[in-house]
Amino acid sequence: MTPKPKSLLTKLDVPTKYLFSAGITNMSTRVKAAMILPLLSQSDPQFQQILKDITEGIRYIFQTSNRHSFAISGPNCLAFETAISNLTETDDKILLMEHGADGERMAKSSKTLTRKLIRLQVANPGDLVDTEPIKQALTAHQPKVLFLRHGDTSAGTLQPLRGIGALCRKNNCIFMVDASATVCCAPLSMDKLEIDVLIAGTQFALGLSPGLTLMSFNDRAVKAISQRKCRISHTMNFDLLAQSWGLTGDEKVVYHYTPSISLLYALRESLAEVVDEGLDKMIERHMKFSLVAQKEISKIGLKFLVEEESKRLTSVLVIQVPDSIKRDAIIEYLYKYYNVIISSGIPPIDKVWRIGILGQNANRSPVKLLITVLRESIQLAKKSEGESSLRSPSTISSTIE
Amino acid sequence: MTPKPKSLLTKLDVPTKYLFSAGITNMSTRVKAAMILPLLSQSDPQFQQILKDITEGIRYIFQTSNRHSFAISGPNCLAFETAISNLTETDDKILLMEHGADGERMAKSSKTLTRKLIRLQVANPGDLVDTEPIKQALTAHQPKVLFLRHGDTSAGTLQPLRGIGALCRKNNCIFMVDASATVCCAPLSMDKLEIDVLIAGTQFALGLSPGLTLMSFNDRAVKAISQRKCRISHTMNFDLLAQSWGLTGDEKVVYHYTPSISLLYALRESLAEVVDEGLDKMIERHMKFSLVAQKEISKIGLKFLVEEESKRLTSVLVIQVPDSIKRDAIIEYLYKYYNVIISSGIPPIDKVWRIGILGQNANRSPVKLLITVLRESIQLAKKSEGESSLRSPSTISSTIE
Repeated sequence: MTPKPKSLLTKLDVPTKYLFSAGITNMSTRVKAAMILPLLSQSDPQFQQILKDITEGIRYIFQTSNRHSFAISGPNCLAFETAISNLTETDDKILLMEHGADGERMAKSSKTLTRKLIRLQVANPGDLVDTEPIKQALTAHQPKVLFLRHGDTSAGTLQPLRGIGALCRKNNCIFMVDASATVCCAPLSMDKLEIDVLIAGTQFALGLSPGLTLMSFNDRAVKAISQRKCRISHTMNFDLLAQSWGLTGDEKVVYHYTPSISLLYALRESLAEVVDEGLDKMIERHMKFSLVAQKEISKIGLKFLVEEESKRLTSVLVIQVPDSIKRDAIIEYLYKYYNVIISSGIPPIDKVWRIGILGQNANRSPVKLLITVLRESIQLAKKSEGESSLRSPSTISSTIE
Repeated sequence: MTPKPKSLLTKLDVPTKYLFSAGITNMSTRVKAAMILPLLSQSDPQFQQILKDITEGIRYIFQTSNRHSFAISGPNCLAFETAISNLTETDDKILLMEHGADGERMAKSSKTLTRKLIRLQVANPGDLVDTEPIKQALTAHQPKVLFLRHGDTSAGTLQPLRGIGALCRKNNCIFMVDASATVCCAPLSMDKLEIDVLIAGTQFALGLSPGLTLMSFNDRAVKAISQRKCRISHTMNFDLLAQSWGLTGDEKVVYHYTPSISLLYALRESLAEVVDEGLDKMIERHMKFSLVAQKEISKIGLKFLVEEESKRLTSVLVIQVPDSIKRDAIIEYLYKYYNVIISSGIPPIDKVWRIGILGQNANRSPVKLLITVLRESIQLAKKSEGESSLRSPSTISSTIE
């Protein structure tokens, strides 16, 4: 018999963390309370009502009236593949607009789905894609889908979206956006921007444990899907997703798969928190505390990868590591002495720190803590240049008053 | 502006439910406590240790020494598609052994992945597949994969597995089993039974909120995967899954996608609970209270779809609805007056009740409650024949002493 693993003889214990990572952040008390509510079976009328509430909530935070708004029980890459495999057929062209390091994954993903790929990349990390090359690429290649991320968390860039929707319509192209890093923390209106498909993970400003991805499809997208001829994965089947969320209009709910019930409770409550605060106010709060953090980070003498403030993503700040300082020494110091978590860079943009100002942490006290310990660690690093790691806070208290 | 949805102005409240459904059951206190622990970023060493603990735990409950044992962040159908799309190529043959109503979904799924399908179906619901037809099908068709579910929750059947592994090896076929309904509640040893790929949802005996699926691949399966030539979805890519779980042997952990952190905490604790109780004792407890329930259900005068006790799945009991009684009236009565949830049948096996004796509910008090209210509802139904719904318990208290 395979023996009992010893590592499981202890109870899991996780200390309080201050999660300023480039994606995952701390959960609110209300969201946590929802996660441990008694489970319901899927066919329970109360559970069906929760799905309806979530659909309404997604419409509100995406600013759309799209009937087909729901959450899948899976990561962002599953949502990306779900959208692409429903919207396009083998050998269809996808235009991928990249303003960061994350495009590589989407590119591979599109290729494995046997779609043809056109990549529109920026010259330097921190740059944005201009309208003119988009126009040219759309006209020259006539892609079926244009995909971009509104906010890029590897370079810390915010891609302007105005005008792209209109260009896509003119070229009979579906405009698809990932707004994980901007939904509820930067102005975004799906309908006004003529976005056809919008997807967003729930671990950013919504502050949930990962595991769900929000999706919304407008009538143009639904029409494109209805014309699809090639076969599609059961898990990713759009019609089954819509039917299981009761979105087909005939009130008949079809079993598709067993969804993440507790995470859906959490999502329902997180959306209710947005409604309580008001979407505008929530965005305002995120922008305000991001600006506070940016100002203080500049005061420390650090520079952002994106110099121009208007091009900068506010929810995830990407900071250049000065030549004299070791990137990981700072990350380790914050982790070891304060349980403050920040992220490192994603290759090739790796000589950076990435800091999320998200959800509950977009507030006065968390930002104060972050800046204080960041300043302390930088000062200490300058003093201990050449040493492999930073000294403990206690040994330097007199020097950082 | 899309207005605030009114349905989200209230806080979510879910009363205590006694979930005897055919899959989802109540979570334990320890599992709930784990779900609200502070989130960790994926790169945190403590999170990496949690993944290692889970791998050990899966090896223990599957009774295997397979290195490639992990959990995907998605439903069972994603695990099925992950296994099939990694193990087989376009036009490869899959032998689907079906002893219930659920096969239709797997059949569709296999077809959408453009695999060729051979179906081995039983003549009547409640029957099992014999060894002889399996032998014949393997020899005649030489499929790449044979897939079956150990326990079928639609018919309440338990398929004997002994001998099938050897037949598969003889025919150069991969033996793949879904053990969602039996893992930790019926005897099952992956290695002894020569199962090459084992998958299992976490919402049955493990008692978690759904959202994760356990998977384990032995060396035969890994070898088959390594010979695959066709492209594969990013989300379902076996190599990336193994790399992100640190299972490649070189300790290098690669980012694949952001997993369901809180659900993985819960899984870790649920596996630790199995270790604390002991796998043998946990299986024994499930069998014991299932037998108690079966005996009492027979005493009420109800019959199981599977007459022969040895062929009966113990974790989900499938009970025939007597002609004189309305199926849904009983389900509604238990739900309305006692918050006790049982499931209805899946077409075409729909004139049944399905009752899960799973996880925490495989215990004296829950089973006592279940039997008491089931007996009450049946007695009441017999008295109120012809009426559209059952009277409330208060009006019949004198009659059911």
